[in-house]
Amino acid sequence: MENDGIKALLDPKSIAVVGASNDPLKIGGRPIEYLKRYGYKGKIYPINPNYPEIQSIASHASIFDVEDEIDLVIIAIPSQYVIETLHGCGKKKVKAAIIFSSGYAELGEDGRRAQEEISDIAKLYGMRIVGPNCQGVANLKSHSVASFSTSLAKGELYNGSSAIISQSGGISGMLYNIHKAFGWGAKYWIGTGNEADVHVPELMNYIIDDPDVKVLQVYMEDVKDGASLINAAKKARKLNKPILALKSGRTVEGSKAASSHTGALATEDIVIDAVFDNYGIIRVDSVVELGVFPQVFELEKKPSGKNVAIITNSGGLGVMMVDKCKELGLNLAIFSEETKHRLSQFLPTFSSVDNPVDVTTQIFFDHDLFSKILPILMEDSNVDSILLGLGIGEGYDISKMIIDLSEAQKQGNAIIALTLIDSTGVGCDKGVIETISKNGVPAFEDPNLCIKAVAKFIEYHLELSSYFDEEAECEQLNYDINLTNATDFLNEYDSKLLLKKWNFPISQEILCKTEEEACQAGKSIGYPVVLKISSPFIQHKTEIGGVKLNVQNEGHLIKAYHEILTNVQRFVSVDLVDGILVQEMVIDQGYEISLGLKRDPAFGPIIMVASGGIYIEILKDIQLLVPPFNFARAKKAVNSLKMSPLLHGARGKAALDVDALCNTIMSFSRLAQVAEIEEADLNPVLVLENGKGVKIVDSLIKIKNQEGENKNELGQFTS
Amino acid sequence: MENDGIKALLDPKSIAVVGASNDPLKIGGRPIEYLKRYGYKGKIYPINPNYPEIQSIASHASIFDVEDEIDLVIIAIPSQYVIETLHGCGKKKVKAAIIFSSGYAELGEDGRRAQEEISDIAKLYGMRIVGPNCQGVANLKSHSVASFSTSLAKGELYNGSSAIISQSGGISGMLYNIHKAFGWGAKYWIGTGNEADVHVPELMNYIIDDPDVKVLQVYMEDVKDGASLINAAKKARKLNKPILALKSGRTVEGSKAASSHTGALATEDIVIDAVFDNYGIIRVDSVVELGVFPQVFELEKKPSGKNVAIITNSGGLGVMMVDKCKELGLNLAIFSEETKHRLSQFLPTFSSVDNPVDVTTQIFFDHDLFSKILPILMEDSNVDSILLGLGIGEGYDISKMIIDLSEAQKQGNAIIALTLIDSTGVGCDKGVIETISKNGVPAFEDPNLCIKAVAKFIEYHLELSSYFDEEAECEQLNYDINLTNATDFLNEYDSKLLLKKWNFPISQEILCKTEEEACQAGKSIGYPVVLKISSPFIQHKTEIGGVKLNVQNEGHLIKAYHEILTNVQRFVSVDLVDGILVQEMVIDQGYEISLGLKRDPAFGPIIMVASGGIYIEILKDIQLLVPPFNFARAKKAVNSLKMSPLLHGARGKAALDVDALCNTIMSFSRLAQVAEIEEADLNPVLVLENGKGVKIVDSLIKIKNQEGENKNELGQFTS
Repeated sequence: MENDGIKALLDPKSIAVVGASNDPLKIGGRPIEYLKRYGYKGKIYPINPNYPEIQSIASHASIFDVEDEIDLVIIAIPSQYVIETLHGCGKKKVKAAIIFSSGYAELGEDGRRAQEEISDIAKLYGMRIVGPNCQGVANLKSHSVASFSTSLAKGELYNGSSAIISQSGGISGMLYNIHKAFGWGAKYWIGTGNEADVHVPELMNYIIDDPDVKVLQVYMEDVKDGASLINAAKKARKLNKPILALKSGRTVEGSKAASSHTGALATEDIVIDAVFDNYGIIRVDSVVELGVFPQVFELEKKPSGKNVAIITNSGGLGVMMVDKCKELGLNLAIFSEETKHRLSQFLPTFSSVDNPVDVTTQIFFDHDLFSKILPILMEDSNVDSILLGLGIGEGYDISKMIIDLSEAQKQGNAIIALTLIDSTGVGCDKGVIETISKNGVPAFEDPNLCIKAVAKFIEYHLELSSYFDEEAECEQLNYDINLTNATDFLNEYDSKLLLKKWNFPISQEILCKTEEEACQAGKSIGYPVVLKISSPFIQHKTEIGGVKLNVQNEGHLIKAYHEILTNVQRFVSVDLVDGILVQEMVIDQGYEISLGLKRDPAFGPIIMVASGGIYIEILKDIQLLVPPFNFARAKKAVNSLKMSPLLHGARGKAALDVDALCNTIMSFSRLAQVAEIEEADLNPVLVLENGKGVKIVDSLIKIKNQEGENKNELGQFTS
Repeated sequence: MENDGIKALLDPKSIAVVGASNDPLKIGGRPIEYLKRYGYKGKIYPINPNYPEIQSIASHASIFDVEDEIDLVIIAIPSQYVIETLHGCGKKKVKAAIIFSSGYAELGEDGRRAQEEISDIAKLYGMRIVGPNCQGVANLKSHSVASFSTSLAKGELYNGSSAIISQSGGISGMLYNIHKAFGWGAKYWIGTGNEADVHVPELMNYIIDDPDVKVLQVYMEDVKDGASLINAAKKARKLNKPILALKSGRTVEGSKAASSHTGALATEDIVIDAVFDNYGIIRVDSVVELGVFPQVFELEKKPSGKNVAIITNSGGLGVMMVDKCKELGLNLAIFSEETKHRLSQFLPTFSSVDNPVDVTTQIFFDHDLFSKILPILMEDSNVDSILLGLGIGEGYDISKMIIDLSEAQKQGNAIIALTLIDSTGVGCDKGVIETISKNGVPAFEDPNLCIKAVAKFIEYHLELSSYFDEEAECEQLNYDINLTNATDFLNEYDSKLLLKKWNFPISQEILCKTEEEACQAGKSIGYPVVLKISSPFIQHKTEIGGVKLNVQNEGHLIKAYHEILTNVQRFVSVDLVDGILVQEMVIDQGYEISLGLKRDPAFGPIIMVASGGIYIEILKDIQLLVPPFNFARAKKAVNSLKMSPLLHGARGKAALDVDALCNTIMSFSRLAQVAEIEEADLNPVLVLENGKGVKIVDSLIKIKNQEGENKNELGQFTS
């Protein structure tokens, strides 16, 4: 049923336009003009009570006057009439609607409420709605152009193997214009606007199954449904259809601007990075990158490694390409002696036959040069890809060059990509770039873009197999929990009680009600110990004198015990104190890690692993993990911390128990998935020497707020 | 005399071509064809003994057959005949020569020697030589095109107000092609190649005085003369002529590639960054940036602040522009209520009148919109620049838009720059970009490039006044030094003796020859102390048991004293030991900084300030300073360390004595300038609490190696 609606959106058999206009430049006139001119085969129903015909097509006063079923209704009328029209569509059993009209969540709270009404109508009738505040949807293969975008206004439709799925119709237009400029094409042109109902991830899920589509070009300002996005990413990986995604709102200010553009709600940008990284979505940094990278990602061949051969006719350009390759994690291929010898037969003595290969002006004089040297490089097993950077002009045989490049791309295993730095004269303009690209060789005007596209492509394919197939590994643990004292925020003792029951390695501690119990605890734990006040009414223990560190012996302990009680009585009554916690003193051993858990509105629980102590604030040495994940990914996160060399025995110190830390992170991830925890901080988690495990010294847990429900029922969320 | 040679290069009255060819496509034929076709007014002398005429100009068998003086000789013959020809030029009193021929330092050691011969000939005759392995020099105003670059082969010459000064002729060609594509121009087109004599910084110094030139576009693979580059940068600042520079060889691999391109020698890339930062050279990251940034840097108006207004017709683009502005250190201007009110009169209700301003499709319907809203933003004193990002196509009135933008740029104080995302149709191609740019509004095809150009421009102007005018502040101190025991490497004791004489704050220490002296030293310094072996023959004291830390009392000291002697005797004879150093124990107080000094081949002494201890290796938390510099710049370097919050009392700790650290850095800088020190490490330098200064706990100094001279004469280098 739902997919019927999406199908009607993307490939409608009939389209009605409410607010149809005779003026082909108005938003109610453009879709009709486009549909007619591009030869849409379905039926077009202009809806306008004031004219018998709109743009020479019979008009109806209302959709109810249309006798046939209507797949898709375009709504191009002022916002105050939208709701009534939608109800009409629902009653008429329209499958899908697109609302061009603005004036919703992008304008603030009132608009947001009006938009929620639209969401409710979609659910009520099972009708799928795109928008409001959107530019619409076009299928360039079936010519159903249900959009008013000026990017679709002229010339032919550029149908192709990519899909443009974007919240912003403006961005879709720019991406499509890049397609047109380079002579490529997209099958779908989509601008979803405010996403009251249909959102980008849902469309990704649907479109990724379309055999015509090889690559997705996605623009998002927020993520309405994290699970759906993750699901699309998993499908994309299985079908080997790369998702290139531009997610804006990286900064706080950008995020705020996004909110006033499409009413977007913010997910923290580092969460987006973590999710994309986890599920193999390729994040790009600009419209231009999103526009030109698909030519590399649509290549049939797959890269086998990171070793790059560079060919240039400008030594200077070669040097800069080497710099950029290294910066982006590629290696400079080391040529075999045979390769160098063979190259030297075709290149003048002053050319470099080493990597980067500088063909100097030889390419000007010898028009067969590429047909000679490309096969040599292709046959060197050390070369995984060949990047050409050329500055050419009058006198060069570009046609021959294109034939040679295209032939080499077809014959060899290495990936070929080319940059032609702007060279006017000789038609070395976009016509040439287009021709080269259409002949199967990705072509760029900026070497940095070319190298970044290739580096991302290689990274994507080399890591494809490493992306986690979590179904196999995510076992659900059966935790048995009974809390003594649960409120919204659990204090240290309760938090650790919880963690202890789940077998987390917490520091040894005993809650003591009397001096004698405390002395007994000190003896059984072993000195030095730490004493801490325990009360659900005291959050900041240190500030009120409720903590004594490094208690060395029994005499010291008795003194500390009474000092704490005296200090604390100035703030809370004795009967509100549970007792005094005697803990083993593990501070100053090992390395401090901080583990955190937060819930993201789109992606649910997110685990944070950070260097603790002074580092967490100053260095922001943080890695995020999106549950579920496996041990290898946990270890990758730990080893990606800037300070991780200290965990592995830097400066002659002993290596620490990284595996135990990763096991704790895995347990934390399972806990995050099965228990309704809103927020948690395990800090510090001390990583001890190899074989000695980790110790959670302090923790704070906040239970997920269930409106109006009893907060004490944490146990029941386990399954 | 030297400048006569440069003048002859850049504006010759006569040009001879040795190796002149009738074939206008050969490198010996191209310059003649170019000079003729572009209407060079000076005299052209083809030199070729085999033909009476070359390209219809009377040819001479040798330059000696030319009766008149020759300003400039182009040498386009195989390398084996170059030296003889140069001697001929010298004897003929030719002022300058350009050697196209390859086969020199780019080929390794033999080539390097041949190239040195060229340098010697230049000095011998006082003749200035460009190349070898270069594409030559062109003055596009006087039409003296002494180059074989194909970028100069066709159409008209694009003379303009920039100067392209590059080691790589290939890069010069690309930059010039960008000029041609956008319709701008350059007065000079220079490719210096291997730089046996004339180098890029020298030409920068000369050209910066040319009143026709407003901005320099520089490409370098190495810096032959650091002082000359710094001098050019200082002049540029005074004349307000920005230098945009691309320096390749950022990575080790790139640096190696540069060496086989033009035989370049490497300066560490972080040194380049420090020098550029210090002297206000604007570093760019690609040929494209170097090509398109000048349109912003040639603007007559200067930015007054970092507050940016963004105007877009695509909310999505607006969001991304906000992100990029924030990433690059710009602020989003906060509009006054009056501005918002005035904007709202011209924009539909669903448009954003806040920053970023989203004009939506209004600009499509209201062709006067920009003429209404730009003056409003110009009049808001919170707006320092206005960045437009537009996606436009068919139906937009681009001509009116250009008039409005250009008019606003002329009338208002804020800087206007525009991005047009590739929109085919309606001639919204490079013709439009060109027209907009020629009308005084910098125009780009990628918003990221536009924002980066503007951000760099603003940074340049806001920091202009902060660049150090070192002449006023660099006092030369008169150090009086007598070393007891100087070798190439001074050991800790000698290094500190040196530092002590120069009033550096070293830790208190006494060299002791006997147990009694050591006990006396312990008493006078106060426990705890540190004991260290002192011998010029022992570099690694700790490894052989030559150090005892945290010696708590006299008994402990006596034991440690003898243990050290016993340990050490296994490695060196007692008579090679100077004694045992008793030092105050300052480890574990304050924060560890490491100060270093190294000599760069181009820029001389460079000071390194780094977080010490574990950080130096793991975080590479390093800042470089190029002497001379002032106190403010030293402080900026310290405060730019990632860990600097720890110096300023992070996490409730006391603030440390940053001023004392900066004073020590200033002394270190003076020492680096006056004394012939090759390398020095002051590590750790402990920064104590505010008011308590710093303590240099250990140091190692290497005296500059004077070939064949006595290393003991360090004192004489002071002045």
